[in-house]
Amino acid sequence: MHVTSEHRLDDHVLERRFTVGDIPGILWTPETPAEPTPLILVGHPGGLDMMYPRVSTRARHAVAAGYAAATIELPGSGARPRSADAEKARAELRHAVAVGEPVTDDVVDRLVLPLVEKSVPEWQSALDAVLELPEICGPVGYSGGVIAIGVRLAVVEPRIAAALLYAGSFLPRSMFEEARQTTIPLQILLQWDDEGNDRQMALDLFDAFGSQEKTLHANIGGHTGVPHFEGDDGNRFFDRHLIVPRTPPG
Amino acid sequence: MHVTSEHRLDDHVLERRFTVGDIPGILWTPETPAEPTPLILVGHPGGLDMMYPRVSTRARHAVAAGYAAATIELPGSGARPRSADAEKARAELRHAVAVGEPVTDDVVDRLVLPLVEKSVPEWQSALDAVLELPEICGPVGYSGGVIAIGVRLAVVEPRIAAALLYAGSFLPRSMFEEARQTTIPLQILLQWDDEGNDRQMALDLFDAFGSQEKTLHANIGGHTGVPHFEGDDGNRFFDRHLIVPRTPPG
Repeated sequence: MHVTSEHRLDDHVLERRFTVGDIPGILWTPETPAEPTPLILVGHPGGLDMMYPRVSTRARHAVAAGYAAATIELPGSGARPRSADAEKARAELRHAVAVGEPVTDDVVDRLVLPLVEKSVPEWQSALDAVLELPEICGPVGYSGGVIAIGVRLAVVEPRIAAALLYAGSFLPRSMFEEARQTTIPLQILLQWDDEGNDRQMALDLFDAFGSQEKTLHANIGGHTGVPHFEGDDGNRFFDRHLIVPRTPPG
Repeated sequence: MHVTSEHRLDDHVLERRFTVGDIPGILWTPETPAEPTPLILVGHPGGLDMMYPRVSTRARHAVAAGYAAATIELPGSGARPRSADAEKARAELRHAVAVGEPVTDDVVDRLVLPLVEKSVPEWQSALDAVLELPEICGPVGYSGGVIAIGVRLAVVEPRIAAALLYAGSFLPRSMFEEARQTTIPLQILLQWDDEGNDRQMALDLFDAFGSQEKTLHANIGGHTGVPHFEGDDGNRFFDRHLIVPRTPPG
């Protein structure tokens, strides 16, 4: 992990830009951590510079609640090399949504499956690197989209103890089987009127998850209209699973 | 309002049993209220003595969060006179659920519509009485089932500023039109695997509500398996709308 810049933000948050190999990322920690903090990985749809305002707001909200937060750029986004196949699939998906045609499984598979295959090991490498810092400890939470990345990480990465997944992107049908294998506590955010998402698919996915604790929070409004209070709800979800020892419901 | 008994409970809650006319009810307040508290009406499926453990737990949780809480017996339940028509409809509904037959609209209408017609004015009378007490003020929240009672109250009773509705009972189809007329903030609790409830109907109902702020919390498990943390989530929902001045989402 190579730190490329360091800023002290006005809310007593230390923001460090870093690279792991050739992948850029950002780490947010309390300026003066009293003790090692649990970590939340902040997922996003790719394009970290463009997404910075929303991603950093979520990260700083997590830091205010006692966490460290980290994110990395996705393959094919930002300054990272593009994949011609992924670009083609993305264009087809956007076209289908724009003209109101159904998004075919083939397009979703061609866009999402290679992204999951490539990015999940990258998130794991970033996790290795960040957890080497003395001020950060496990357990780890994953928060956000791309939902397919979150599902795969929830299943394959044992350091992730809880995931707050944003049902705002398409999941390949073949990954419903993976969803059935989840065991960690899940909170699923669904924007009820998301123009670019399939509501029924999100409900089917919630049904499919194998976890014994799973909660769906659905709010009206479009893709970017997640209510402010869901940030607090998300932190409390993580508090239950990353900080407070688990106790059976009373 | 006639207070029939008064108990100081061990969590510094004052529990008063009362009658309004011939309707029994229970009021829970802080033992020594610092200032007038907002009120939460605690809904339930009827049979207050049988429901007392669950209803009083919810009520005392609300008092611990700074509210007063009140409930009344439903018509045809507890010691109140039975309605032969309602008993017949209830038996038909239970039979249909038990043998896995569809519950017909006719049965739901015969069971629920007279209950709503009779009980909603009773809740309003109880509200009149309770709000006369100097230690209790508006605004008022409604929390729980029967969902049809909550929907009607949300539409017709202007003192109710927010409602947390439990999608655990059947709603007459004719009341979907009323659901479209709601304007107050709503939080809807759905138990995903509720044996006695129709999940799709609950999702359709969430879709139908007219309120500009509505949130669905779905959890896995059966009718009585609502997770403990939803009690805190419910109080925070009411905090946003009954205590904190409303501000536009940031």
